[in-house]
Amino acid sequence: MTIPELADRVKSRDRHAIARAITTIENDDQSTGRLLRELASKLGHAYRIGITGPPGAGKSTLTSELTKLLRSNGKTVGIIAVDPTSPFTGGALLGDRIRMQEVSMDEGVYVRSMATRGSLGGLSAKAKDAADILDAAGFDYILFETVGVGQSELDIAKAADTTVVVLVPESGDAVQAMKSGLMEIADFFVVNKSDREGADQAVRALTTILSFRVTHAEDEWIPAVIKTTASKNEGIENMLREIDKHREYLETTGKLALRRKARERERVHELIEDMLRIDFWTPAKSALLETELDRVAHHEKTSFDLAHELISDIKRQVA
Amino acid sequence: MTIPELADRVKSRDRHAIARAITTIENDDQSTGRLLRELASKLGHAYRIGITGPPGAGKSTLTSELTKLLRSNGKTVGIIAVDPTSPFTGGALLGDRIRMQEVSMDEGVYVRSMATRGSLGGLSAKAKDAADILDAAGFDYILFETVGVGQSELDIAKAADTTVVVLVPESGDAVQAMKSGLMEIADFFVVNKSDREGADQAVRALTTILSFRVTHAEDEWIPAVIKTTASKNEGIENMLREIDKHREYLETTGKLALRRKARERERVHELIEDMLRIDFWTPAKSALLETELDRVAHHEKTSFDLAHELISDIKRQVA
Repeated sequence: MTIPELADRVKSRDRHAIARAITTIENDDQSTGRLLRELASKLGHAYRIGITGPPGAGKSTLTSELTKLLRSNGKTVGIIAVDPTSPFTGGALLGDRIRMQEVSMDEGVYVRSMATRGSLGGLSAKAKDAADILDAAGFDYILFETVGVGQSELDIAKAADTTVVVLVPESGDAVQAMKSGLMEIADFFVVNKSDREGADQAVRALTTILSFRVTHAEDEWIPAVIKTTASKNEGIENMLREIDKHREYLETTGKLALRRKARERERVHELIEDMLRIDFWTPAKSALLETELDRVAHHEKTSFDLAHELISDIKRQVA
Repeated sequence: MTIPELADRVKSRDRHAIARAITTIENDDQSTGRLLRELASKLGHAYRIGITGPPGAGKSTLTSELTKLLRSNGKTVGIIAVDPTSPFTGGALLGDRIRMQEVSMDEGVYVRSMATRGSLGGLSAKAKDAADILDAAGFDYILFETVGVGQSELDIAKAADTTVVVLVPESGDAVQAMKSGLMEIADFFVVNKSDREGADQAVRALTTILSFRVTHAEDEWIPAVIKTTASKNEGIENMLREIDKHREYLETTGKLALRRKARERERVHELIEDMLRIDFWTPAKSALLETELDRVAHHEKTSFDLAHELISDIKRQVA
């Protein structure tokens, strides 16, 4: 199948074509640019929601339940689950897979797991590319589910129009969220598993912390804190209402366009870094690195010296 | 103070000089290379231990207790705590700071917090540079304390000679560890807070998971699982015994040298990426990016097209 043919089938939401297109962007940097160019005119329809939080917060269940609710409203949903890979499992764990399968049997839903295999530098970029494919395929909503600790993972969450940070009632979770940078990216908070003890205290703690946040402008968005128990399908309507409210805020203030532009800026930066790295590491350069590394290991030179030598070697060649 | 003077004072373990040297590597890329070159001959003495795990596992307390034990054995200890920054706190949380202060009043201990401020790409490299400074200052042990979720954070943990993954007894923690890539980097596991219910089950679960790991060679290291209750100073001797055992294993098999070489290789890669990025983004290029981003936002071109244009512009200039 040619790239334009593949793009056409993606646009008509052919599931096999979507799968193939995402595999293409995962593996083939050459075709990715051409494929996305073919799809560009169809972009911008989908609303992108990032669902993030610490491990064990129940993000998968929440994602599944939100998907069911959106479906019952007649909306189509694409899900990108960024699951760190383990050699023990080869990707997502069985429990999550089963939960995901429930929703993914539905024709109006497309679920794709992406793993942090190999160079993670690229994962954030590739997750956004995959979202573009689902956007061009006409899905109304795209949900990114990603663990919310670690910079690359936060970058994925930030690539959404609305970012939801999921926590659990256990004391200390709010404090850990502050430490791990989740506070800054949350458009609102969900305290999930709120049938557990301490849910109300957790909400109060978060609300208090948020009240310390300096508001710079009158029209500034103030993140809400809502409670859910995803496993019992409780609070999901509330969550969707908050998403809609945030979306309306972004649209009326013109901030949606700014946010999407920032996302593209970030993506260009990522692409440039990938390209520079690939261009740089020729077989000759990699070989030189290996030879000289022994001298670094013996403290005869530093890794800085070696990096400078490798860089200036390139500069000499083009000069 | 000149760079050679600063280096001399670092080598004599002058605390102010160490602080200044780390601030230098955090802020000044030009001086870093020169500083580390002056220190190169003194490198290789310190044994580097990564202490990592999910938020809330008690890594700080464990680090403090291990430090006290090492001190009672007459060893000096440098600690690098990689704390994600929050604008609410401006760095580490008060509780951790107080705990750290307890050990940092000791002349044989040096504690440095490093934040994930700004470009995290550089943090992993900078944490290793800071470790080199502490190594050159003659500390016997360097402990990296870092949250073990997220790729950049795992990279820091991997930069150690021995990597300890800290979990808590709560069910699901082992499963989450599998998902987040912690299993692969652990030289051994600590189930901390093991006075809580479920500690023995957690140890059994981890041991079972580990038994599925395919062993490739006869001399392959098999990670142990040990219990601690750092807050009550229980199990710390056991933990140190396991560190010593792993160190001996690495030394007798020659794997310590390989591991350290791999660390330098990774660092050269990181440095090259930083240099390429800095070289690339001239003011003119950044301005061009901003102009053209609007066309990407309007779906007239893709971020791929724009990235290629920016790259080929560079190639034209040097051609």
